Amino acid sequence: MEHWLRKRAHLSPNELAIETMDEQWTFKQLYEKAVSFARKIAFLKGKHVAILSENSLDIIVAFWGCTMLESKIIFLNTKLRERELIQQCETADVEAVIGQSDKVQPLNLALPTFTFEDIESLPILDVEISVEMDLSSICSMMFTSGTTGTAKAVTQTYENHWSSAIASSLNLGLESHDKWLISLPIFHISGLSTVIKSAIYGMPIFLMPSFDATKINQAIQTRGVTHISVVSTTCQRLLENLGDNQYPDTFRCMLLGGGPAPKSLLEEAAEKAIPIIQTYGMTETCSQISTLAMKDALQKIGSAGKALFTASLEIRHGDKKLETNQIGEIVVKGPMVTSGYYDAEKANKESFLSNWFYTGDMGYVDEDGFLYVVDRRSDLIISGGENIYPAEIEDVLLSLEGVKEAGVTGIENTEWGEVPVAFLVTEKQWSEEALIDYCAQHLARYKIPKKFYFCESLPRNATNKLQRHLLKTKLTNK
Amino acid sequence: MEHWLRKRAHLSPNELAIETMDEQWTFKQLYEKAVSFARKIAFLKGKHVAILSENSLDIIVAFWGCTMLESKIIFLNTKLRERELIQQCETADVEAVIGQSDKVQPLNLALPTFTFEDIESLPILDVEISVEMDLSSICSMMFTSGTTGTAKAVTQTYENHWSSAIASSLNLGLESHDKWLISLPIFHISGLSTVIKSAIYGMPIFLMPSFDATKINQAIQTRGVTHISVVSTTCQRLLENLGDNQYPDTFRCMLLGGGPAPKSLLEEAAEKAIPIIQTYGMTETCSQISTLAMKDALQKIGSAGKALFTASLEIRHGDKKLETNQIGEIVVKGPMVTSGYYDAEKANKESFLSNWFYTGDMGYVDEDGFLYVVDRRSDLIISGGENIYPAEIEDVLLSLEGVKEAGVTGIENTEWGEVPVAFLVTEKQWSEEALIDYCAQHLARYKIPKKFYFCESLPRNATNKLQRHLLKTKLTNK
Repeated sequence: MEHWLRKRAHLSPNELAIETMDEQWTFKQLYEKAVSFARKIAFLKGKHVAILSENSLDIIVAFWGCTMLESKIIFLNTKLRERELIQQCETADVEAVIGQSDKVQPLNLALPTFTFEDIESLPILDVEISVEMDLSSICSMMFTSGTTGTAKAVTQTYENHWSSAIASSLNLGLESHDKWLISLPIFHISGLSTVIKSAIYGMPIFLMPSFDATKINQAIQTRGVTHISVVSTTCQRLLENLGDNQYPDTFRCMLLGGGPAPKSLLEEAAEKAIPIIQTYGMTETCSQISTLAMKDALQKIGSAGKALFTASLEIRHGDKKLETNQIGEIVVKGPMVTSGYYDAEKANKESFLSNWFYTGDMGYVDEDGFLYVVDRRSDLIISGGENIYPAEIEDVLLSLEGVKEAGVTGIENTEWGEVPVAFLVTEKQWSEEALIDYCAQHLARYKIPKKFYFCESLPRNATNKLQRHLLKTKLTNK
Repeated sequence: MEHWLRKRAHLSPNELAIETMDEQWTFKQLYEKAVSFARKIAFLKGKHVAILSENSLDIIVAFWGCTMLESKIIFLNTKLRERELIQQCETADVEAVIGQSDKVQPLNLALPTFTFEDIESLPILDVEISVEMDLSSICSMMFTSGTTGTAKAVTQTYENHWSSAIASSLNLGLESHDKWLISLPIFHISGLSTVIKSAIYGMPIFLMPSFDATKINQAIQTRGVTHISVVSTTCQRLLENLGDNQYPDTFRCMLLGGGPAPKSLLEEAAEKAIPIIQTYGMTETCSQISTLAMKDALQKIGSAGKALFTASLEIRHGDKKLETNQIGEIVVKGPMVTSGYYDAEKANKESFLSNWFYTGDMGYVDEDGFLYVVDRRSDLIISGGENIYPAEIEDVLLSLEGVKEAGVTGIENTEWGEVPVAFLVTEKQWSEEALIDYCAQHLARYKIPKKFYFCESLPRNATNKLQRHLLKTKLTNK
């Protein structure tokens, strides 16, 4: 298939591709900047290139530029500590890191690193760039952890991204005035998938560096934004900020993902006639796999809808399909589902069964076929839209002198949805301050436990496996 | 991929699938009727099944029913004579014919034939029907002729149909109130592709048995129709019938295909603010391959736009790509393009060069990348939206006693666009009446030459090949 951005620049050269508070780029401009970026870093052709950047025009140009070199793009989370970044670069066989100067410069990675400014000043080489895309090849990788505590790189092919964009359009429609606001990070799938939709649909994006309720509400009210992707906490903040004001009728989709949403929030939005569309998806499914249709949004509050047109979804216990209304593991299939974690045979064996991907999340399907997500995978903590894997934090705590056992779980929090808390069995007295300090050296801030509890033992099953879901019970007994 | 109609019935069970003047069917109803149809003719599983029917609910049910049996569906043109139908059934290895009783019953085909009523009265068998579709397998075949005069069966895979529907949606958009009127035959790709889009998009179709300007204009004005596919002649008749009336603002696309359109027609439509969108496509590309975008419709009157998102298009002379504004053969590529004619190695060799399909049509691309179709393949006559291949008519005429040479070409006609006329070199005197009678026995009515000219010789080139384009010159000299 012809390169998406190239084709779009041919079809809609003068249409708006990206809008920020101050700038407007057409598809032709974006394409030309991406081509020039690619020609400047042509020496990275075909390599594994990590991008470390917050939302900016630069990260979008860098992404498209790398696709024109058939490089595999590894997206790094800017909130991570050096230790975490090093681990991820090793896991994904990264050969060079490019990014925002204040993020890239302080790093000591033993890898070639280039800031966007470095690249800007490079000469434009007279090299061929790819005018086609091989759909079956890997476009990007993003990290997710798991029960082991070691981050795994989810591979996302061009086919995965394409199928995700198409399946979404068959559900949400494609209207000529659509404009999708991006405030969630582009290094996460929600942001990246919208960047890609923009080229495929010929739809402008309204780009924000980060979440800012006031600015977002202004953009929806005065800049023609029709779509925005949110998670529960950001949705809540938008509604609070909106107060008694209203969104214009042209605003047609607030796509709510990132875990089950409180019913009170959904009902408040329904009262205000805010078009919240619940969705279920993850890095492994290249964003949405199941989304409520607009026509069902009010009848099925709390549901994440049905599997998108090209996707399938079942509730299983092991390999057994469960009946209507029975809670079990959500398993999914479709052309937007990753074909596996990079270089992780064991994890792939555990997660896939004849093309079905076992999400680890729990849910049920009602008598009309609508999915209800009961709980993201039992050990996953979702805090302000970021996934936190307890095992990773436990590993850090266990590396401390005198810590014999460590268990981490999430507790409810009005601002962030959930926050992590830790349970420790220690031989040595540690102050909370010292623990926080130690964690801060090794972990992104959002992963640092908000509270530490000292106990005599942790709940374990017969095979001595930590039972994290019982940690919460410990808390209520305290 | 899950079967499209099954999936759509799951996603939108109670949404409207088909509307006629008198009836309304939901996707659930359509699906159930198709399943029951499939179970009644389960003995045709996997076979080559021809359908011979005008537009009706029956032909749609029969089409979907056959897909559930993984039968290959051969669409036959109801205007053809028995001789032509027999030839096509042989070419496509048809094993059974089903259809409308007044079309099927008079036939003497040496093949099992079933009218829709026959099938209605069959018992529903308790057999498994397919819940998935193998995208790479052949879904349908439709006939097109060529320079040889023998009809060739164009194979259309599920992938071809899927890609066509998706590429069209990326250009025309998908809005929640879309409703596409079908008045062109479903046995042609324009009609069938709309039936398929309906299931993929979740969009109702408004089905008409045939073209009727008054009824169509009424449907657009009072029944919420938003899209209609037309050819020049039907477009002209709609405009005449509309007179000084207007279409509602919700009517957003009159998709005009089937050959170059007179500029006067396009300008008249533009004056009346009728949203004509010119397109270029053919049976071999599963409908549109190049379509004007709505935003460009007024600036580029007369152009068939740019190749759709997943398609590519070049102007070539042989294997050499021509420059901007140079007229040459239109060659196309994309996942909606047929992988070949059925069982026709020679024709496939002639028409394909490393995945590029040579259309035989002439055109050029302007400096902004817009396609202008100058002429459909030089020997093709397009009459009221039906393709007529001169060689086929010539074959019939040459089979007449005393006819030494025959040449057929199209001349302009206000009602039909073009009509065929014949040039004959004869050893025996034939009356025009006798010639018409003879043709009527062997050819569909629309193929019968409207005029016969007797000459001493026909224009031929050095290798004695008939130069049909010079026949017209003969006419102006007369």
